[in-house]
Amino acid sequence: MNVNGRIWLETSKGTFAGEGRIALLEKIKLHGSINKAAKEMKMSYRQAWEQIESMNKQYNKPLVHKASGGVGGGGSVLTLEGEKVIKLYKEIKLKFNEFLKAQSKIL
Amino acid sequence: MNVNGRIWLETSKGTFAGEGRIALLEKIKLHGSINKAAKEMKMSYRQAWEQIESMNKQYNKPLVHKASGGVGGGGSVLTLEGEKVIKLYKEIKLKFNEFLKAQSKIL
Repeated sequence: MNVNGRIWLETSKGTFAGEGRIALLEKIKLHGSINKAAKEMKMSYRQAWEQIESMNKQYNKPLVHKASGGVGGGGSVLTLEGEKVIKLYKEIKLKFNEFLKAQSKIL
Repeated sequence: MNVNGRIWLETSKGTFAGEGRIALLEKIKLHGSINKAAKEMKMSYRQAWEQIESMNKQYNKPLVHKASGGVGGGGSVLTLEGEKVIKLYKEIKLKFNEFLKAQSKIL
């Protein structure tokens, strides 16, 4: 028998970010493109953008910055705030995994 | 910002018990009746019984004993194993709530 689970960050306005949204942010960082990130997450651009908007609104500062125009057209950049949120989630997730492991051991 | 989450017990055969199944076991203990417990959980008798069977199979010993006949007809009794499982889950849940509280504090 094992203990398993999941965690997420939330604000008074609802879910802020869990496993899926953090993965989306990581893919935006990797590709510099919401479109590519959305495809890899098997969601539509619209779905991805709605999740980003939900996070941006709850965080007060944008986590993803949509650049437009310039050489090679637009692109999307993960902001420093976006990086912070990923780091924060990962740190808590690591501690949660340790918690699950410790609890599973004493079952 | 807060950290929230959920946990469940699982075996190699899948989910063993989470919040819902534990609540079902508690209601069976309270009412001595799967039927009453199912109604309070807003599920059909069949759904409740399937969840109980899934737990019974994974635990090797029954968590709920279906009594039949006797004065006043049948009834269902939570076994000692059922009590143990509730206690185990509640203990882990308590520690998980402490974990969430501690993590939320340092956000």
